[in-house]
Amino acid sequence: MLMKDGMNSRLLLDCAKSCILASSPVFRRQQFLIRCVGGSIDHQPHSRNMQALRSIEVDSESLIRAITPALDPTRHKGQAGNIAVIGGCREYTGAPYFAAISALKIGADLSHVFCTKDAAPVIKSYSPELIVHPILEESYSVGDENKRSVSSKVLAEVDKWMERFDCLVIGPGLGRDPFLLDCVSEIMRHARQSNIPIVIDGDGLFLVTNNLDLVSGYPLAVLTPNVNEYKRLVQKVLSSEVDNVDAPQELLSLAKQIGGVTILRKGNSDLISDGDTVKSVSIYGSPRRCGGQGDILSGSVAVFLSWARQHILTADSNSNLSCKNPTVLGCIAGSAILRKAASLAFLNKNRSTVTGDIIECLGKSLEGISPAS
Amino acid sequence: MLMKDGMNSRLLLDCAKSCILASSPVFRRQQFLIRCVGGSIDHQPHSRNMQALRSIEVDSESLIRAITPALDPTRHKGQAGNIAVIGGCREYTGAPYFAAISALKIGADLSHVFCTKDAAPVIKSYSPELIVHPILEESYSVGDENKRSVSSKVLAEVDKWMERFDCLVIGPGLGRDPFLLDCVSEIMRHARQSNIPIVIDGDGLFLVTNNLDLVSGYPLAVLTPNVNEYKRLVQKVLSSEVDNVDAPQELLSLAKQIGGVTILRKGNSDLISDGDTVKSVSIYGSPRRCGGQGDILSGSVAVFLSWARQHILTADSNSNLSCKNPTVLGCIAGSAILRKAASLAFLNKNRSTVTGDIIECLGKSLEGISPAS
Repeated sequence: MLMKDGMNSRLLLDCAKSCILASSPVFRRQQFLIRCVGGSIDHQPHSRNMQALRSIEVDSESLIRAITPALDPTRHKGQAGNIAVIGGCREYTGAPYFAAISALKIGADLSHVFCTKDAAPVIKSYSPELIVHPILEESYSVGDENKRSVSSKVLAEVDKWMERFDCLVIGPGLGRDPFLLDCVSEIMRHARQSNIPIVIDGDGLFLVTNNLDLVSGYPLAVLTPNVNEYKRLVQKVLSSEVDNVDAPQELLSLAKQIGGVTILRKGNSDLISDGDTVKSVSIYGSPRRCGGQGDILSGSVAVFLSWARQHILTADSNSNLSCKNPTVLGCIAGSAILRKAASLAFLNKNRSTVTGDIIECLGKSLEGISPAS
Repeated sequence: MLMKDGMNSRLLLDCAKSCILASSPVFRRQQFLIRCVGGSIDHQPHSRNMQALRSIEVDSESLIRAITPALDPTRHKGQAGNIAVIGGCREYTGAPYFAAISALKIGADLSHVFCTKDAAPVIKSYSPELIVHPILEESYSVGDENKRSVSSKVLAEVDKWMERFDCLVIGPGLGRDPFLLDCVSEIMRHARQSNIPIVIDGDGLFLVTNNLDLVSGYPLAVLTPNVNEYKRLVQKVLSSEVDNVDAPQELLSLAKQIGGVTILRKGNSDLISDGDTVKSVSIYGSPRRCGGQGDILSGSVAVFLSWARQHILTADSNSNLSCKNPTVLGCIAGSAILRKAASLAFLNKNRSTVTGDIIECLGKSLEGISPAS
């Protein structure tokens, strides 16, 4: 009897503990971790999926060799690429730097950042190699009565440069300030009018997922979602949950549904589709998941996309590329180069690898695939 | 008949398409890309031109050895060169840093930067080696009623230092603010009165092209235009388009027309003229066209020009230099050292070479040509 009472007491105690735990941060954290693991398990490729992936795996090294321009001494500054990153606010400064410096290390000639006034001195101080324009504004620094004039000024500043850019990267460290995002929406519309490719990542994907008309039907738009960003995109566009059994087919439908934009779904294998074709990149890679690798990817895709476009536009281009869409080619090349650089950095730095270490391996990675001379 | 009609219809359709395209941003963008590619083709040297270039190619290594001063332990701080860069504004901070740090890496003792208040902390953060003066002002920070007093204050600040400088570099990252450019015009007039050499690049060339009297007839002025800056200069001074068939003769005429200033026309081969002689530097080099190399050149020319001037002024100078104009000598040496450093950096970093990598090779390049001991 005593024993029974003792058991009852323990049950009551456990129950009470659970009740306390349910509302505690520890419990919420555990639940978050379980959800994350669940997400990860969802992404373990099924054997059918594995087979499908193998069939769409692309020879990314040959592709990189085909689109990387020869280094010709008669060319002048800007011809190997002039990239602009729209991002960087009071809160985030690392992400736009990673994207912009990666573009230079891949081989672009010029790399700009358009960010808020607070972010500019910090991003400038990371590297004198970047051209940093302190022109964006967040709500806290603009009264309602000035919003229209400030917005016009921001647009005019970006427009001065627009025609010179080969590609915009929109989103790294952009933040979610409503006024700033409104300005960036206008920048995207102007870029689209000028037929300038745009690579959208991070907070840019938040903006686009809630305003699909910004990119819908624009074949020069690239979205580079990670697991969570992809989930939100699928929910919004396909009104369903992510289907990991037939991931390539789902990505194809998603890209088609947004009018033929190109989507690079980041994952254990990177999947790329423009609604017409699906490709996979699974080579190399690193188990290290330090923040910032997505920014390297967006900057790299921007450069390769520009090169692929130039390659395709060139009259004497007689390459045997199976795909002629420069956005898809840019994604494949960007994905492969990041994976190779990450694997090289990991060989050297192991668990302590950070994003800067990977950026330092971009040059060597490209050189290994497509020697400059 | 049907076929003919079909052809006519197609012609009409093509014509209509062209009309639509002509006014579209897509078309403008394509035209921009074509201009870029066209610009490159324009600069392919003709065979006659090649022959002319060979005949004026100078032995730049011997020249560097002749003008580089011996490192004598009895000399004191400043005697190997005290350079000032006038540039750096809210938008640009990398360019003045590159110019000023290059001067130190070539071997100057002291290197100053005079920039705006916004730019100063950032430029200071790039390197503790530089002396950075936050004294320039842009229109947005000065009311109309204060412009005269602010301008006087800026001039007084620069004048305090003026006599100590061996050379000014005017333009890297200067921007195009009208009030700031007015102040810089005054600084140039004061430098000229004090007989201090001035190397003009970047936005300084924009200023000078629109105000030729600032340099006209001043033998200690050096202009270092790139492709586009040279084009504007030719249009303004010679009222013609650039002639690539007889480039040396055109440069000679241009320099003579501006009263014997020295012009370093940057290109696949660098051409240098003071209106009296034309020289060419074609050795070494790198196919990488990352932004910022022009800034290295301006800082390097400033140091070599100072050394050449010192060399020529020295009573016991008995060198067999074929040219005795220190500005021409400075340009030849600056051009050669940048080309050598760029080629060394490229050997190591290939396509991922950035301007900072080239600066790191300046010392080794000079040491290879003119060993310090």
